[in-house]
Amino acid sequence: MHTVLRSPTRAVVIGDDQPFCIIGERINPTGRRLFQQQLRAGDLSAIERDVLAQVAGGAQVLDVNMGVPLADEAELLTKAITLMQGLTDLPLCLDSSVVEALEAGLSTYQGKALVNSVTAEDERLAAILPLVSRYGAAVIGLPNDEDEIPMTARRRVELAHKIIDVATGRFGMDIADIVIDPLAMPIGADTTVGRITLETIAAIKAELGVNMTLGASNVSFGMPGRHTLGAAFLPMAAAAGLTSAIMDARSPQIVDSVRAADLLLGRDDWGAGWIAAHRARQAT
Amino acid sequence: MHTVLRSPTRAVVIGDDQPFCIIGERINPTGRRLFQQQLRAGDLSAIERDVLAQVAGGAQVLDVNMGVPLADEAELLTKAITLMQGLTDLPLCLDSSVVEALEAGLSTYQGKALVNSVTAEDERLAAILPLVSRYGAAVIGLPNDEDEIPMTARRRVELAHKIIDVATGRFGMDIADIVIDPLAMPIGADTTVGRITLETIAAIKAELGVNMTLGASNVSFGMPGRHTLGAAFLPMAAAAGLTSAIMDARSPQIVDSVRAADLLLGRDDWGAGWIAAHRARQAT
Repeated sequence: MHTVLRSPTRAVVIGDDQPFCIIGERINPTGRRLFQQQLRAGDLSAIERDVLAQVAGGAQVLDVNMGVPLADEAELLTKAITLMQGLTDLPLCLDSSVVEALEAGLSTYQGKALVNSVTAEDERLAAILPLVSRYGAAVIGLPNDEDEIPMTARRRVELAHKIIDVATGRFGMDIADIVIDPLAMPIGADTTVGRITLETIAAIKAELGVNMTLGASNVSFGMPGRHTLGAAFLPMAAAAGLTSAIMDARSPQIVDSVRAADLLLGRDDWGAGWIAAHRARQAT
Repeated sequence: MHTVLRSPTRAVVIGDDQPFCIIGERINPTGRRLFQQQLRAGDLSAIERDVLAQVAGGAQVLDVNMGVPLADEAELLTKAITLMQGLTDLPLCLDSSVVEALEAGLSTYQGKALVNSVTAEDERLAAILPLVSRYGAAVIGLPNDEDEIPMTARRRVELAHKIIDVATGRFGMDIADIVIDPLAMPIGADTTVGRITLETIAAIKAELGVNMTLGASNVSFGMPGRHTLGAAFLPMAAAAGLTSAIMDARSPQIVDSVRAADLLLGRDDWGAGWIAAHRARQAT
């Protein structure tokens, strides 16, 4: 299955016969106090550096989140999208929990965006999927409902089914435009969550065959050696069926781990990508 | 299933509820010209440095191979075993294709060794398994036969079945004392071999439930970025069911990747091992 995202001049394909798709996570004020202050003052200049660093690191899509308390998220998001589309031809992933911000963002974005995200809650499905469908975008579906984040792979797969059924049945979307997030949780809080995520990925691949993405940094939250944990987790997840991640494209260790996984999983013909990346690294 | 190896004073347990077992690969003259010359002259002094480096790196078992052309392998192996058992209390993995060397090694070794290895060839099974059984050792079974290394997971599983049937049926061995090698081949020669190994691991785990080990360095042979490839491959293999590897314990990147996999797969309660290792690394 191929999920195609587009900017005006570039298409990126997510699929299990493609190299793992790196979605740069960095354009996000969460936990970045200075960036929050700048955004609240209408200063978006820090975005340029982050865009360039992630492009240089190997990102193929860039996530953009402008969720700053006490700021007009819709306005910031549209400004950020216009700025970013002037800096890079990578497709964007529009990341907001505010429906109005997503709508403003989709109306500004040039191309086919990935919307991050919709849950399996009826209200969210009814509010977000019509937008996604109207703008011809793709969407990330989070398999959690009103109650809480389900802690079994089985329940997550059921909720993924529900999202796909509603999106394709009620809103006529193509299943290829739904990317399921199997939900990655911090291993430091509970050492069983890694296996639950890997089981969820394997079950979604087997039963639904859709593309998947997750927030890779969540796994190592609160632990030392975060890049090493990410560099071990992503190859495991890719081998289980994960085809994309929202991740820190500035970390060579984590980026190299997914490129190594591509080679080891037979998605880098002749190892050409691996060898070229190694030569480029040595030349710098 | 628990495979227990012993020195006079220490037991090491291999199992899927245990931390991944690191078997240090370094005491091996293959590709080491100077070491070969020293061994041919009866000089085993280089072994001490290699033993200490691998123990410091986190090895739990040490492989010892004394296969030097034009030398008496049985004599070298017995000397090396005696020397190594004076340096470390880690159990050893006796690595030879020469039956007489294995017999001499087993008669010298104090404890319960791992014998590396027996194939599924009738002649090898008949020559090596009686020795393994007589000395109460464990053995690594390579699922290849007279013809060639099979390039499908299915055929490798069949040959693993055969080794286990012969060892348990004809020689009365405990299935827990048979460790199957799913066969890791160089990804640089053929980019499909990684998946074949991972499929073999998953199938052997599902159908046989035995412990497994493999020569991790084989995967990256001939490619640049070997440690990065190893550090991506081993977590994938551990997630599929691999419980041990013969690997370079001197590489922090590869050792850290298997300790990260332990945490992510729920084999490091409370993350205590991960956090302790991180503190130790920072203190050096």
